[in-house]
Amino acid sequence: MSMDSTKDVLQRLADAIDARKAANPDTSYVARLFAKGEDAILKKIGEEATETVLAAKSGDREHTVRETADLWFHCLVMLSRMHLRPEDVLAELQRREGTSGIDEKAARKDALRDAS
Amino acid sequence: MSMDSTKDVLQRLADAIDARKAANPDTSYVARLFAKGEDAILKKIGEEATETVLAAKSGDREHTVRETADLWFHCLVMLSRMHLRPEDVLAELQRREGTSGIDEKAARKDALRDAS
Amino acid sequence: MSMDSTKDVLQRLADAIDARKAANPDTSYVARLFAKGEDAILKKIGEEATETVLAAKSGDREHTVRETADLWFHCLVMLSRMHLRPEDVLAELQRREGTSGIDEKAARKDALRDAS
Amino acid sequence: MSMDSTKDVLQRLADAIDARKAANPDTSYVARLFAKGEDAILKKIGEEATETVLAAKSGDREHTVRETADLWFHCLVMLSRMHLRPEDVLAELQRREGTSGIDEKAARKDALRDAS
Repeated sequence: MSMDSTKDVLQRLADAIDARKAANPDTSYVARLFAKGEDAILKKIGEEATETVLAAKSGDREHTVRETADLWFHCLVMLSRMHLRPEDVLAELQRREGTSGIDEKAARKDALRDAS
Repeated sequence: MSMDSTKDVLQRLADAIDARKAANPDTSYVARLFAKGEDAILKKIGEEATETVLAAKSGDREHTVRETADLWFHCLVMLSRMHLRPEDVLAELQRREGTSGIDEKAARKDALRDAS
Repeated sequence: MSMDSTKDVLQRLADAIDARKAANPDTSYVARLFAKGEDAILKKIGEEATETVLAAKSGDREHTVRETADLWFHCLVMLSRMHLRPEDVLAELQRREGTSGIDEKAARKDALRDAS
Repeated sequence: MSMDSTKDVLQRLADAIDARKAANPDTSYVARLFAKGEDAILKKIGEEATETVLAAKSGDREHTVRETADLWFHCLVMLSRMHLRPEDVLAELQRREGTSGIDEKAARKDALRDAS
């Protein structure tokens, strides 16, 4: 995969998902998921997260990649339903990027946890 | 965020995470997570998935973006621990991309489910 | 544990949890959880479910028992917050009990899944 | 439901589940789940935990009771697979029972978290 295409994968997938929102549920998995509604989409996130954890725990690298792809894919469906884009998530990650960014975030969370 | 930087965010984050693997646990959240081991990392994926679902269910878009970023971030930590890269997940998503790709995958899963 | 006490454990725990609802958050873990609110309680269910799955996957039976206890305990906290009782869950399980009951439920779910 | 029967529900369900372990997968949902193996059972726990969280978040009390029953039921299947009994989980909960018990456990966990 060229460097250029990596960027576009999430955006092109998000475009494809957006295009299914109004489609006939009989015509695609994503259209069917949108038709089932919010809980059906969110259930998939819990389900795929568990499958990702189980695949990683098994140490099966290819399986882990597939399950992580499933998890991120269903996150894209959730984002689309909420009129959000993968770019929003990447911007949030970018905001935290770098040594200081990651540690600042963790420090903030730890502080909140200790305070509670 | 420019189009170009979106691509690099996941890769740069993965690089930063990789660099923490051998670091002193006292110096960073990620180093601490690696030191705690596999289960600690996988627990975070389950935890952040639940937080993502709860944020989405609340309809709070900014909160959903932050929790999705947390979820993807901890997926990157898990991938790094398994010597995998975000590019591997993006390549898997790219493979499924397009109308036919998404539907083929869904059709395959549905077929497996019906058969079981 | 005597046969008689098994029944009472869930009910007595539910009573103890109910009694903490109005308590000072500084005085107990459960009071603190109630004070934090709904999302904090529901997050714990996602978290403990993941820990249960990881413990079972490790094959550690004692650890699995402890994590399942944590999971059921936080379910009791959730039920208490919704003015529900473990007896309500046990009554639902009893309704499904027996060969036919379990299969009827599964058949219903499978039918719904296939139809969707 | 009489007080006496509440105790027996989990034990009778566990007995019924145990009896399905060696059954033909075509004959029951539980036999099918055992035939699919460990990951299929553990996935259900992650799935039902998410459904429980979503039902509770919706504030639908009847739905929450049904999903909690599904979650506990699949915990029983997992326990059966590991040659464990609901009595083991209830004994662990009983051990923690009482004001001091619950707080002691929470204090232990908080201490571990702060120390890490």
